[in-house]
Amino acid sequence: MISTGIIVEYNPFHNGHLHHIREARRLTGADCIIAVMSGYFMQRGEPALVSKWARAEMAVLCGADLVVELPYAFAVQQAESFGSGGIAILDALQCRNFCFGSESGDIEKFRRAVSVLLKNESVFNTYVRCGMKNGISYPQALANSLNKLGAGDVLDLSSPNNILGFHYMLAAAKQNTGMEAFTVARKSAQHHDEAFADETIASATAIRKTLMRDNDPASIRTVVPKQSYALLTRCLKETGTFHHWGIYWPFLRYRLISASHEELRNIYEVEEGIEYRLKKAAIAADDFESFMKKVKTKRYTWTRIQRMCTHILTNTTKDEMKRHAAKPEYIRLLAMNEKGRAYLHRIKKNVPVPVVSKFSASLGPLIELDSRAAQIYALPLTKNGRDNLLHREYSRPPLMVGEPLR
Amino acid sequence: MISTGIIVEYNPFHNGHLHHIREARRLTGADCIIAVMSGYFMQRGEPALVSKWARAEMAVLCGADLVVELPYAFAVQQAESFGSGGIAILDALQCRNFCFGSESGDIEKFRRAVSVLLKNESVFNTYVRCGMKNGISYPQALANSLNKLGAGDVLDLSSPNNILGFHYMLAAAKQNTGMEAFTVARKSAQHHDEAFADETIASATAIRKTLMRDNDPASIRTVVPKQSYALLTRCLKETGTFHHWGIYWPFLRYRLISASHEELRNIYEVEEGIEYRLKKAAIAADDFESFMKKVKTKRYTWTRIQRMCTHILTNTTKDEMKRHAAKPEYIRLLAMNEKGRAYLHRIKKNVPVPVVSKFSASLGPLIELDSRAAQIYALPLTKNGRDNLLHREYSRPPLMVGEPLR
Repeated sequence: MISTGIIVEYNPFHNGHLHHIREARRLTGADCIIAVMSGYFMQRGEPALVSKWARAEMAVLCGADLVVELPYAFAVQQAESFGSGGIAILDALQCRNFCFGSESGDIEKFRRAVSVLLKNESVFNTYVRCGMKNGISYPQALANSLNKLGAGDVLDLSSPNNILGFHYMLAAAKQNTGMEAFTVARKSAQHHDEAFADETIASATAIRKTLMRDNDPASIRTVVPKQSYALLTRCLKETGTFHHWGIYWPFLRYRLISASHEELRNIYEVEEGIEYRLKKAAIAADDFESFMKKVKTKRYTWTRIQRMCTHILTNTTKDEMKRHAAKPEYIRLLAMNEKGRAYLHRIKKNVPVPVVSKFSASLGPLIELDSRAAQIYALPLTKNGRDNLLHREYSRPPLMVGEPLR
Repeated sequence: MISTGIIVEYNPFHNGHLHHIREARRLTGADCIIAVMSGYFMQRGEPALVSKWARAEMAVLCGADLVVELPYAFAVQQAESFGSGGIAILDALQCRNFCFGSESGDIEKFRRAVSVLLKNESVFNTYVRCGMKNGISYPQALANSLNKLGAGDVLDLSSPNNILGFHYMLAAAKQNTGMEAFTVARKSAQHHDEAFADETIASATAIRKTLMRDNDPASIRTVVPKQSYALLTRCLKETGTFHHWGIYWPFLRYRLISASHEELRNIYEVEEGIEYRLKKAAIAADDFESFMKKVKTKRYTWTRIQRMCTHILTNTTKDEMKRHAAKPEYIRLLAMNEKGRAYLHRIKKNVPVPVVSKFSASLGPLIELDSRAAQIYALPLTKNGRDNLLHREYSRPPLMVGEPLR
């Protein structure tokens, strides 16, 4: 049984993702597609549009066979930790291959870039650190560093999916996984586009903007698979709103106003005195957008500030993040179909960490973060919505999903 | 110019308060009535129904000549600190007398009770501490201790206003103020009544319950002065809601869910492992009322838990409370009439602490607490309501109020 892993967010699942899954299956000849997916909060520091359960269900309905969770401590992170957590889980689940979407679409380029880095790792890291100290963004620092090593033409590291892919490849090499790597070129739409590029492909960013503006999945019907559309519609009906920073802003503002500078400094990723800036902006701003604009500087990317805000919202401290291991200490199952279940059954005894069907506090400090993320994600919901979500989170087994889209 | 001080909350100002002010003026022959009033959060751990500015205005319109603020660090406290802060401010403002409402109405009884205590202070305090360790409430422990000293018939220390009065008298004796003490018997309604006793007198508790239930001052028109009625109506029109725990519950719950047990233990008044109980109840409860019922035990009075919750909401730590002096370090003016202004002008140079017309962060750690209380009190308001309140708080001089009710 050939298994291929993918690292995803599906926020929400769209036609580009469908293309990626289909190509991953075709290119690798996979029988089983395993997706490791972030939970309630995203890599770029945003709450997920809909719960991880709905997104996991979308994933299986649209072609994945097994969906597991990337814990909060790896998901809400820069590309390096995000990638290393995802790759470690796919490796633990005995994947033969992994396959990612990229702007480049050429796996050889990634191999060469990683090899250049590995041969000059300390120099490369020094370049990146210096660049960021001088106030340029991480993507730019990364691209510049490769340039300085004379390999700037090898891979464009200023594109977001190339960066992620590069870090998957790097993590796989460092963790010595032996998984074979594949990449699929992203279809047409650029990740950061905010308007639909054509009739069937749009970026997740554009889709989210449209959904939040209209609060109606009808506007994005043409750019997502029908299963995704149906689930988004169901979620909206159940909870009355998509989740976005706007509905968490009152809590973030409250926390920024009530916390001392010292308390804010204890939060993961809050550095260099930005706590003063954050607190000031929270007092002056009336919504999340205007808050972000007040905090934003050349030195801090929008994403970096959002991630910081997510950690403030979830009260994730530097100490907590220090406590956890370099690799995930458990793998939580979210959803699967018959094939995923059979695969899991076959490989289970070889997985080096617990594979978890149901929430258990005994899994250590990492699961405490996931649990808090769930509690806080559920806060803006009505009593019913909240009860349902937390019941799903704490008391129910993974979703078993029927026939996928072919 | 004879000046008489009163210590008040006016949440809201009602006919009983009007009786108290008039009697205080008559009994003491006062030219000038000075009220020291709690700010945005009350002694019993509740947000004020309407802002301190509106309440200060009510006070002057209904007979006070000068209203100053009792800082958060003294206002949201057990009777002992509340009383000692209030008395210190009245003394600093050179009051010749002070006058409080009580169930007893007999100042001699207070004198005797204080004298019994002062002669047996360490024994008395040991009795109180032991009583509370054995799980009885503070009022009961206080009453029992006086009983054990053979003075139980002197003063009933289980009534809330007798307790406060007792602590005012005690503070005045300990601070050696030389102010003469007076007391006025409370009219008919018992403080804890929740239904109106007759047509013109009702307790503040009953009035608050009715206002929150009906969200309409018309229901309480007969039991408050017309100035108070007009101001409550104006406040409701401006902000759309009275302030009560219900509108702060989302923030309290968020904080309880996101904070670690250790962080909660750092909060003032959180003791004896109650942080575990608080956190559990916050996850399970859907509103403030059901939360309180889950936390409540025989050991903890409702008031004590509410006060604890106020400190959690405002993030007031043990460290912060330790830092401040035994007496207020500044006196903030809220409202006055011509007579209050003239009095202030005459005594100003004798006041041992700064008398503050406008907010200034340089006044030290205590004002930081007041400022945070204001910010957090304003959180549930609309943008306009919040802007107005904070503009009033940070940028405006005290209110000058015209002709009072005679």
